[in-house]
Amino acid sequence: MQPDLLSSAQLAHTSHLFRSHSPLVHCMTNDVVQTFTANVLLALGASPAMVIDADEVPQFAALADALLINVGTLTKERASAMLLAVESANANCKPWTLDPVAVGALTLRTEFCQNLLTLNPAAIRGNASEILALAGMSHGGRGVDTTETAVAALPAAQALARQISTIVVVTGEVDYVTDGYRTLMVTGGSSLMTRVVGTGCALSAVVAASCALPGDRLDNIAAACGMMKQAGSIATSKSNGPGSFVATFLDALYGEVQA
Amino acid sequence: MQPDLLSSAQLAHTSHLFRSHSPLVHCMTNDVVQTFTANVLLALGASPAMVIDADEVPQFAALADALLINVGTLTKERASAMLLAVESANANCKPWTLDPVAVGALTLRTEFCQNLLTLNPAAIRGNASEILALAGMSHGGRGVDTTETAVAALPAAQALARQISTIVVVTGEVDYVTDGYRTLMVTGGSSLMTRVVGTGCALSAVVAASCALPGDRLDNIAAACGMMKQAGSIATSKSNGPGSFVATFLDALYGEVQA
Amino acid sequence: MQPDLLSSAQLAHTSHLFRSHSPLVHCMTNDVVQTFTANVLLALGASPAMVIDADEVPQFAALADALLINVGTLTKERASAMLLAVESANANCKPWTLDPVAVGALTLRTEFCQNLLTLNPAAIRGNASEILALAGMSHGGRGVDTTETAVAALPAAQALARQISTIVVVTGEVDYVTDGYRTLMVTGGSSLMTRVVGTGCALSAVVAASCALPGDRLDNIAAACGMMKQAGSIATSKSNGPGSFVATFLDALYGEVQA
Repeated sequence: MQPDLLSSAQLAHTSHLFRSHSPLVHCMTNDVVQTFTANVLLALGASPAMVIDADEVPQFAALADALLINVGTLTKERASAMLLAVESANANCKPWTLDPVAVGALTLRTEFCQNLLTLNPAAIRGNASEILALAGMSHGGRGVDTTETAVAALPAAQALARQISTIVVVTGEVDYVTDGYRTLMVTGGSSLMTRVVGTGCALSAVVAASCALPGDRLDNIAAACGMMKQAGSIATSKSNGPGSFVATFLDALYGEVQA
Repeated sequence: MQPDLLSSAQLAHTSHLFRSHSPLVHCMTNDVVQTFTANVLLALGASPAMVIDADEVPQFAALADALLINVGTLTKERASAMLLAVESANANCKPWTLDPVAVGALTLRTEFCQNLLTLNPAAIRGNASEILALAGMSHGGRGVDTTETAVAALPAAQALARQISTIVVVTGEVDYVTDGYRTLMVTGGSSLMTRVVGTGCALSAVVAASCALPGDRLDNIAAACGMMKQAGSIATSKSNGPGSFVATFLDALYGEVQA
Repeated sequence: MQPDLLSSAQLAHTSHLFRSHSPLVHCMTNDVVQTFTANVLLALGASPAMVIDADEVPQFAALADALLINVGTLTKERASAMLLAVESANANCKPWTLDPVAVGALTLRTEFCQNLLTLNPAAIRGNASEILALAGMSHGGRGVDTTETAVAALPAAQALARQISTIVVVTGEVDYVTDGYRTLMVTGGSSLMTRVVGTGCALSAVVAASCALPGDRLDNIAAACGMMKQAGSIATSKSNGPGSFVATFLDALYGEVQA
């Protein structure tokens, strides 16, 4: 099962869908990446909203078009609210996406993420170490960073996707998007993206948003990865380091990411 | 009651007052906009401080020159601490400002904001959907975004301002600042500001700060809106998208916003 | 005891150590500076991770190379988790650094920081008002800002360092790094850094990281201060205000801070 390469026509099509549909994304994400995540979604034409209290999340998950669960700065209280959000999303047929940040080494989030796997995520986005840990094949990376290449986690990603009928995105120098039967490969980007906090977490929010778009979900998610890779390449060529990268990256998502 | 246009002389005067008085602003705001809010206040010469624990907020609200309450990522625990801060601000004659983010559709924040209306806010800043919802005339916007123009909410803003003796700021393509009897209109800015998270929330912090300045409060608040609009226009003309906008906007607030 | 000036050779050496050792820094810091702190560490080649739940922090403090405790937006719940992290760091011989933001005027954080002083911090970084308050010689500054110059707090810093066998960094226009017996002085930087939120908090994270490097700790910490000062000078010369400063500062830390 050789991965296919994402086509530039698909990237352009999904990019257009972002702007025409402007999905409202309920983001329950970590403390470090909130601003960048919101700005990435806004740059692409989507609409972010961060609602976190256990009383409010069921209401908002029902209103929003998609839900993101990112466990980067998980607490027990947030985990409870996240579960309520996921249940509401499921009850209202809204797709939800999991970013299992640093799963593996830390018990609370590992057990929580294992529990979430039983609740029908539309998509899961992680680096190689996270996907391997989620599939029970390793004990995670170094902090939030991976110690493996994405391709090394592809078999685990495919097995996990088949097992729980979801789409798994394993990202790295090359991204792989798989439902366990078909796999798309996304190239591009630059190593500078690893020196800017939140590029992976923001991608997960874009994946969550893309699950709310019409059309084939696997194609749209791969295109979401491609949009981020393309903006990363453009931004790297125009910036002098990770500081100027942030601005040029958002500008590229806003203005230049298209066929 | 035709609105008057903010004068550039007032804008320059209030801008000077920010730098000469450097109001210390106690910000209890949402998770997404903390950094940008602090940087906006710093660029204008004000001094931000985020203090959130129920034990500390009464002490700090008494020390600070002004208080901001923003319910964007409200939790029940934060709501309790916010109430203590408001009570301390009132007891110490410090003005406090409400930003009722996404009020209307979500029960917890809607009831909390209705409760806060009884506690003498110096000012309220929201988009049209939020002001309409706060006045009991609608059920809110789409997530954190408005579905109405500012002028459509002006009658509600004026009625609310008269009813609880406050100043209501309803922002959009044109901003309106009203105490229910006199209304100032502020033009400028750009649609790019809606593609950057926190421009509205940061404006609320600037409104809060301006309540601590000497002179007419309605004039100072309108000037605060004008400073943000002017910086938005300058930044849009100098930037390539929402990423570079953030830097050029802060630079403009720091160096160019004056008569 | 005249302070010695940090040498450029030491700065270059420590800068190299950051890149070659890439210390994994467990940051328990305030809500306002999370993104900037992470990006500063990443720009220098270090690896940040923010883990906050009481269940997870003992595990992660044991895995990480260094721990940062910053009390800027302290809550009682966070204080409990921070204590567990400090105990784990100590049990696993990992150095931990304290940033006592706004200590003095607020009771909760003042008592908490006094308690932390008994738990063997490797380093403490604060502005003059904070160090004076921590040493029991004043009641703190104005919000998070100092009302004193760094040199005015040097005797208090030296006394505190000797008393609890730690390294105290008191920062301002000139930074002083002292173990109570030897003192290094670091010049450079610019006043523009005081108009950007988080430069001090991010420095504390860099100080925390430098405690995990091989070599003399006092020298490495002074070099960490020097790297931030040097990047601040470069960024000020290349930027148009506090907005563009953020990007140019991170770019300078990434590419230009060396001998």
